[in-house]
Amino acid sequence: MRKCVGVVDTTFARVDMGSIAVETLEKHLPGYKIIRHTVPGVKDLPGAAKRLLDTGCEGVITLGWIGGREADKLSYLAASVGLILVEILTGKIVIDVTVHEDEAPGDPEKLKSIAVDRVVKHARNLALLLQRGPEALVREAGKGLRQGYPDVGPL
Amino acid sequence: MRKCVGVVDTTFARVDMGSIAVETLEKHLPGYKIIRHTVPGVKDLPGAAKRLLDTGCEGVITLGWIGGREADKLSYLAASVGLILVEILTGKIVIDVTVHEDEAPGDPEKLKSIAVDRVVKHARNLALLLQRGPEALVREAGKGLRQGYPDVGPL
Amino acid sequence: MRKCVGVVDTTFARVDMGSIAVETLEKHLPGYKIIRHTVPGVKDLPGAAKRLLDTGCEGVITLGWIGGREADKLSYLAASVGLILVEILTGKIVIDVTVHEDEAPGDPEKLKSIAVDRVVKHARNLALLLQRGPEALVREAGKGLRQGYPDVGPL
Amino acid sequence: MRKCVGVVDTTFARVDMGSIAVETLEKHLPGYKIIRHTVPGVKDLPGAAKRLLDTGCEGVITLGWIGGREADKLSYLAASVGLILVEILTGKIVIDVTVHEDEAPGDPEKLKSIAVDRVVKHARNLALLLQRGPEALVREAGKGLRQGYPDVGPL
Amino acid sequence: MRKCVGVVDTTFARVDMGSIAVETLEKHLPGYKIIRHTVPGVKDLPGAAKRLLDTGCEGVITLGWIGGREADKLSYLAASVGLILVEILTGKIVIDVTVHEDEAPGDPEKLKSIAVDRVVKHARNLALLLQRGPEALVREAGKGLRQGYPDVGPL
Repeated sequence: MRKCVGVVDTTFARVDMGSIAVETLEKHLPGYKIIRHTVPGVKDLPGAAKRLLDTGCEGVITLGWIGGREADKLSYLAASVGLILVEILTGKIVIDVTVHEDEAPGDPEKLKSIAVDRVVKHARNLALLLQRGPEALVREAGKGLRQGYPDVGPL
Repeated sequence: MRKCVGVVDTTFARVDMGSIAVETLEKHLPGYKIIRHTVPGVKDLPGAAKRLLDTGCEGVITLGWIGGREADKLSYLAASVGLILVEILTGKIVIDVTVHEDEAPGDPEKLKSIAVDRVVKHARNLALLLQRGPEALVREAGKGLRQGYPDVGPL
Repeated sequence: MRKCVGVVDTTFARVDMGSIAVETLEKHLPGYKIIRHTVPGVKDLPGAAKRLLDTGCEGVITLGWIGGREADKLSYLAASVGLILVEILTGKIVIDVTVHEDEAPGDPEKLKSIAVDRVVKHARNLALLLQRGPEALVREAGKGLRQGYPDVGPL
Repeated sequence: MRKCVGVVDTTFARVDMGSIAVETLEKHLPGYKIIRHTVPGVKDLPGAAKRLLDTGCEGVITLGWIGGREADKLSYLAASVGLILVEILTGKIVIDVTVHEDEAPGDPEKLKSIAVDRVVKHARNLALLLQRGPEALVREAGKGLRQGYPDVGPL
Repeated sequence: MRKCVGVVDTTFARVDMGSIAVETLEKHLPGYKIIRHTVPGVKDLPGAAKRLLDTGCEGVITLGWIGGREADKLSYLAASVGLILVEILTGKIVIDVTVHEDEAPGDPEKLKSIAVDRVVKHARNLALLLQRGPEALVREAGKGLRQGYPDVGPL
């Protein structure tokens, strides 16, 4: 069976992060089958990630979009716990990407560019970890890398 | 055995969201048996969802109503974690709908219309995912869809 | 074996909610054996509920009392997650009742009456769910029922 | 095999609560073997408690010390969830004692006396529950007992 | 098979804490194989720790770096719950080290020295617990030890 990697995104997001992830993974993981699963919102991501991993995928990238209300922040927390739990229970890699609307209030262009950059960089992270194993990112350890922003570098 | 889908709602809610969900699911999921389970409040939803799924239902929609006190927000968080956990442990779909009283303070008509719109749209989401599988919502991915409000669209 | 239902309360509480629950359950669940388990505080409730359910009880009512400090609110959150988890893992009903000291600051009589009303109504909820199953409360769904306060009714 | 009870404390704490717990448990649980496990901080308590219970102990008392920073409060929450989970998963009793530095800012003597009183009373609670079972504390239910402070009594 | 211990760090961190941990563990745990796994950020730590422990390691040290935004604090909470869960589920030791950017705002040198000191001391804690067992740190219990800062001592 062909190796498989999953992409989970939402209809709530205001940028089609799923397509960007698919494109980036295709480039970095030739030969992998990419399965996409779209759900309504961020709280639906962990269950969807679990279902994809249960079908045999080796890893998943999840793409959440977080609104600015207090309830959204709590949803972010609940989803984060859930995604971590999926990773613990399956033993597989889940790269959890989120964009927060309050990162660029009133500046949709900036928010969009944050989203694009973050997805591209994290899809690459997922690909590297799947291809080269646990030590794939060691040479970048402690380097102050950022996704969605320029790297800040080591102190 | 006939396919089954569950509706879990509360006596705490101020809108009969359960009936709206049943009606919408009947329209979109002909042939499915719909089981309804009403519990007191939002923290009772995850256990009730789990019990319905254990009886063989393929998916559940849960309908929570969140008061405006600080304790209610913490209850929202606990319930959200629980519902995510149910989805992870069962491998089945749980669509988690909540209406927050502070979405429309002092405007009961608006709050009611938010509740109705949100339930209808999310019951449709559940039906689509059950009928067409993980890719059912891909064409709506990143479109800035909202439930309870008009869609905001992509950036 | 006689059917069994559990009551878990605390020494921290300032109202003997456990006795009220026992009395109410005796009235509504004739023939059931009622097992009571008292623990120090709210964070001890989930473990105690789990132990009672493991002895064969069909359901449990837990009775927490939440102080007004910030740490108490975090304890409330942790306990709520725990009680939801017990319900998910056992497949049995846990009705989680809490009284928050900041519901009636400086008014002990009011706080006491909130506690009594809340326990009586939720013990009845537990009894109905155990006796009549998942649909027992459907006719009260969305009715804006409150425990500890008068019902607020539907919108 | 001799019955066993565990004591888990930290190097972070500013009072040797572990020794107080050991002493109190020796008095109240003659014949029990007491195993002590010291870890760095509050987030290490749940794992340590689980390891002690896995060696066959019947119950554990954990002794946490919570600093005053925001991160400490979040650590308190995470540890509380963890300890509750240990109790749920093992079916054994975990008495979770914490002292919060902001209970007596600038008054080390008071903080120390809070810690001592709290440990002594909770070690007694653990001993009673282990010796006399779930109903051991029923006569103290709803009595407004406090640990670290004088009891406040029932309303 | 040679005994094994894991080091998990991130590319988000601004100090190469992983190398410091490896060096310290090599000194204190001669004969142990040290496996390093670098992941993007703090929410990726629990899954990575679980994967290392599943390969047979006896313990893991995780090295998180927490930004100053509200979302970062929630990520810290989610990661903390996850790491505690890994420890509970595996029965093995996870020493969870985090550095918070708001510990030394505007003072990178101080932040760096906090990070170095914290990693060195906690790597030693892990080594002691692995070599000497649950009682290894008992003589330091309640001594007000701090990592990243000078010890504050007992009250």
